[in-house]
Amino acid sequence: MHAAALPRALGRALLPRHPAQAIALGFGTAILLGTTLLMLPISKVGPGGADFLSALFTATSAVCVTGLAVVDTATYWTPFGQVAILLMIQLGGFGIMSFASLLAVLMARRLGLKSRISAATETKSRGFGDVRSVLLGVLKTTIVVELIVAALLALRFGFGYGSSPWHALWQGVFHSVSAFNNAGFALFSDNLMGFVGDPWICLPIAAAIIVGGLGFPVLFELHRQYRKPLHWTMNTKLVLSGTAILLTTGTAFITALEWDNPGTLGRLSSADKLLAGFFQSVMTRTAGFNSVDLSQMDPATWLGMDILMFIGGGPAGTAGGLKITTFAVLFFILLTEIRGGTAVNVFGKRLSRSVHRQAITIVLLAVALVVGSTMTLMLITDFSFDALLFETISAFATVGLSTGITAALPPAGQLLLVLLMFVGRLGPVTLASALALRSRQLLYEFPKERPLIG
Amino acid sequence: MHAAALPRALGRALLPRHPAQAIALGFGTAILLGTTLLMLPISKVGPGGADFLSALFTATSAVCVTGLAVVDTATYWTPFGQVAILLMIQLGGFGIMSFASLLAVLMARRLGLKSRISAATETKSRGFGDVRSVLLGVLKTTIVVELIVAALLALRFGFGYGSSPWHALWQGVFHSVSAFNNAGFALFSDNLMGFVGDPWICLPIAAAIIVGGLGFPVLFELHRQYRKPLHWTMNTKLVLSGTAILLTTGTAFITALEWDNPGTLGRLSSADKLLAGFFQSVMTRTAGFNSVDLSQMDPATWLGMDILMFIGGGPAGTAGGLKITTFAVLFFILLTEIRGGTAVNVFGKRLSRSVHRQAITIVLLAVALVVGSTMTLMLITDFSFDALLFETISAFATVGLSTGITAALPPAGQLLLVLLMFVGRLGPVTLASALALRSRQLLYEFPKERPLIG
Ligand SMILES: [K+]
Ligand SMILES: [K+]
Repeated sequence: MHAAALPRALGRALLPRHPAQAIALGFGTAILLGTTLLMLPISKVGPGGADFLSALFTATSAVCVTGLAVVDTATYWTPFGQVAILLMIQLGGFGIMSFASLLAVLMARRLGLKSRISAATETKSRGFGDVRSVLLGVLKTTIVVELIVAALLALRFGFGYGSSPWHALWQGVFHSVSAFNNAGFALFSDNLMGFVGDPWICLPIAAAIIVGGLGFPVLFELHRQYRKPLHWTMNTKLVLSGTAILLTTGTAFITALEWDNPGTLGRLSSADKLLAGFFQSVMTRTAGFNSVDLSQMDPATWLGMDILMFIGGGPAGTAGGLKITTFAVLFFILLTEIRGGTAVNVFGKRLSRSVHRQAITIVLLAVALVVGSTMTLMLITDFSFDALLFETISAFATVGLSTGITAALPPAGQLLLVLLMFVGRLGPVTLASALALRSRQLLYEFPKERPLIG
Repeated sequence: MHAAALPRALGRALLPRHPAQAIALGFGTAILLGTTLLMLPISKVGPGGADFLSALFTATSAVCVTGLAVVDTATYWTPFGQVAILLMIQLGGFGIMSFASLLAVLMARRLGLKSRISAATETKSRGFGDVRSVLLGVLKTTIVVELIVAALLALRFGFGYGSSPWHALWQGVFHSVSAFNNAGFALFSDNLMGFVGDPWICLPIAAAIIVGGLGFPVLFELHRQYRKPLHWTMNTKLVLSGTAILLTTGTAFITALEWDNPGTLGRLSSADKLLAGFFQSVMTRTAGFNSVDLSQMDPATWLGMDILMFIGGGPAGTAGGLKITTFAVLFFILLTEIRGGTAVNVFGKRLSRSVHRQAITIVLLAVALVVGSTMTLMLITDFSFDALLFETISAFATVGLSTGITAALPPAGQLLLVLLMFVGRLGPVTLASALALRSRQLLYEFPKERPLIG
């Protein structure tokens, strides 16, 4: 056997056959370890340890970078518990970003698609070469963004709010990691409501969230090809334009609907209203911090945010939801039909037909899951439809925003949210790649027919 | 000029160029005439005539066979007014059934599809021949079904409830026409709640609704080919199996969720619970009568009924909604993707690819319209999200069920419902045929690319 072949063969043997099983196993293990850690008395303020359900919920919420909470992160957990949560967030965020990026490389190779990451890693030997370069790329991106944002936040917490240097650093690191990984956990009992008018806190956090939510393939391409926007892949163009449109629309929508609401934006200055509206709009990409009291919002605003959260961020990043690109595919199908076109063209490229049915499949299954879960929660609780729909979408899209009912749900309801966070975090990306990678054989074809529709 | 050519040329000149414009014009005219009729003092009980908005709303609801009401049909309108409403229902139901059937024939001819009606009318000369045979077919079906059901109902009203012969006949005819045309208007202030346990009233009405909701192409084929189910078209198979599945699921769902609810099924015997559950399930196919108090239902039941109403009945019949076949297309796309198939096969036939995108387009536009309208109603009223969503879907799918808020909506809200009924009645069928009939030219094809989704 050739000397270099040994580690490669060993690697192949250790690598799991089914990527979906591997990532589910990995996330499951991390959640159980995290639950155990959080149940230790050292993690919880006061005597005794946390109960199993609170620990499980918090660990799932952290590993799946969701941010929903049944206990107050600021007062319930000790610094040890908070560090554990931070590590889980970082592990979960890094895990999902790398996993999805590796799947993207795998898909690009197998389907012969255009992809910068794939092309860059092609130069190295196939096998470990590309895995390593992707993991290193994700790691570098994570560290660079988190360090910059942590430094900015630490400076502000130190000089603006009088935190001691070490405490300011801890606050900066925690919120930076929580932001870049789209987790939404904060060290304040009222989340970020104390900073609603402070751009020095809100804007770096928003920036970290947006960057993390663009996804690694987009960041990679922006880094390599920032001078040549015309050469970007369809994925990058869709994510960037989609993010811009959703952020703008979301800001306008939230700001307009809540402008006079005394419980949310009403008492703020016009500039602060805009900042808070923008911040909440960014949060639906699916970070989950809040700088205003969501329980006081108009239910119509919730409904709009439901849609934004369900769409989510870019693929192969830290954002959740069904991804901007999935809805972009549906949108361009719609546009083509209305215009009467034959092929679905996007930015001068034809959208592969196989992706049409895959996008519909993912959206239909997600809608069924969200509606079914909401209905279940309606049957086992007395909360209103709008609050439960918001909570369900927030869990499934791993957003972490809440109208304030999470802690008051019965254990069965909290377990359902745990399940939704897990499925919502891993389901869409694994399903999408499974559908795309499956080998299909056309054995015979039936005669064509069509029913009447509409 | 040949003698026979004159009436044909005249017909061509009078026939509108765009079928969608013709039907919109026709329905609009009928609504305005109906509004005028209902504003006459002779139509309204007591002094003076009805106000414009109430008359417009009632006329739209009747012509679009919806059944939503801002005034009590039983006590607000005189017998003259009620006859006017009945005529509008019959005109609207006949209009939509014929229009959609004619479009179906046109599509089958142009696209070279399999269709029994088209084949049957082929034998006559093209042009007026098929139009006449379709109109006659729809007329015959309507008269036969309505007469049978009217007779059954009249007997029951006469012998079971002591109505005088002429009054029983009037009650029989009104409810039969209202049922077959899926209109949902009733001559009782509590709709059909007084007959919740009476199968002699409920079952004939349910039968008329189901038959009307199957659509003319299905009825035509059942009539011609009832011995050869294997030779039925995909459309007939989908509508029949879909109707059976939705009725069964709906009955089980409503009966189970409302079983112990004292406001709805709770105080009934087990047999009556089943009858009432079945009846309400039939109503979502989109008739809109009610034999129980919908305002007392669990919001989870509303949510389930929202879905059933949105799906609606069969194409080219009197039912509203997006049609069973539209959702069947989406369902089979999903099934094919999950199974890893290459072509979407339904009952041993391949589902035409063009219909995939058309179904998605119609569903997406409808979802956008329903969500947008619900949000608008949330902004201009204080009613809850679940009640407003129910009302919006009920109007758009021309169902006519209500949680009881219709009359309490502000004028702007009622006008929005008027618009929704009109668009919901004519929009899906005209859009579907417009998409299918458009000539498409493939001039060039871009290189293929696909974004990451999920
Ligand atoms: K989150
Ligand atoms: K109706």
